[in-house]
Amino acid sequence: MGERPREIETLIDMMARLPGLGPRSARRAVLHLIRKRAVLLAPLAEALRRVAETVRECPRCGNVTTADLCEICADDRRANGEICVVEDVADLWAMERGGAFKGRYHVLGGTLSALDAVGPADLRIPDLVQRVRDEGISEVILALNATVDGQTTAHYIAEELTGTGVAITSLAQGVPIGGELDYLDDGTISAALKARKGF
Amino acid sequence: MGERPREIETLIDMMARLPGLGPRSARRAVLHLIRKRAVLLAPLAEALRRVAETVRECPRCGNVTTADLCEICADDRRANGEICVVEDVADLWAMERGGAFKGRYHVLGGTLSALDAVGPADLRIPDLVQRVRDEGISEVILALNATVDGQTTAHYIAEELTGTGVAITSLAQGVPIGGELDYLDDGTISAALKARKGF
Repeated sequence: MGERPREIETLIDMMARLPGLGPRSARRAVLHLIRKRAVLLAPLAEALRRVAETVRECPRCGNVTTADLCEICADDRRANGEICVVEDVADLWAMERGGAFKGRYHVLGGTLSALDAVGPADLRIPDLVQRVRDEGISEVILALNATVDGQTTAHYIAEELTGTGVAITSLAQGVPIGGELDYLDDGTISAALKARKGF
Repeated sequence: MGERPREIETLIDMMARLPGLGPRSARRAVLHLIRKRAVLLAPLAEALRRVAETVRECPRCGNVTTADLCEICADDRRANGEICVVEDVADLWAMERGGAFKGRYHVLGGTLSALDAVGPADLRIPDLVQRVRDEGISEVILALNATVDGQTTAHYIAEELTGTGVAITSLAQGVPIGGELDYLDDGTISAALKARKGF
């Protein structure tokens, strides 16, 4: 076919690597961007550049932030005694949309996986144990996805925390089997949090 | 909820304005970008910046290009006598994927629309008439979408071109290759029946 400019091909290839976009929708998105050059293309480039330059991982909890500590770790009004353990930032956002949890978070960044060679140190699990000791935590809520990997990771963390004296809970059944937090409605997440039980 | 950094909110809002992405998929895409910061986020920002800086409209046909003329207008091997008129660049790309057309293009940039106040001059229709006269065109193929607006625009262009002596054709209408009658709309079946040909 008549070749597209290399710059456009590169952009289409990259857009097609985003979740939810394939080659066809990436082409449509890129043409849309070119048509809306002034109001969307240049501002989007700038927004991406700013995120690339300013966003980092919160050293305490693993949330995304542009400051030294993330908004949640830095918020004095949040309860200090509770840590909610989530797999990734999308799950943290999902929990926050529910609005039922007022404590702190710990973002693992994934789940244990023998297949993908993901071990405890890759998941900030030692950091979690350290935080439980240092911050005087009374309860750790394991809000991991109801998948095999998520539950394997939950059991591993529970074992690591025995001996610290902390109460370990998990989200109530009510989270559908095989479901992922980021896809759940807010009400279900709130209900599951309220009905949490001993792990 | 615990606030997300403003930079991330801005990026999510912009991504959600792309066709095919909503607020939820935009959140997922942005988190994916942050996780793949080195290999995707920064390169995507750079790719967008380059497209914003280099891509322009081909002054002859309206295709996207980074040069003075687009690849197709600048290609000596393509037939000079035929112009294929399409609504936008996505349609040009679709025609080129087919690979059956070896002539030149003219991209209107939309269709005539009284509702949206789109007139002939907004669609480069005067440019098309000028090209037909200047470039010694023998055939204009109207490859506009089979929608009401597309066909209105096709009729308008055909009227504008009467008197130039150019042959005006349009894409055949009928049953798509691989199409099943049971799944086709009535209009398509009627059109295919009217245009039936010897077997």
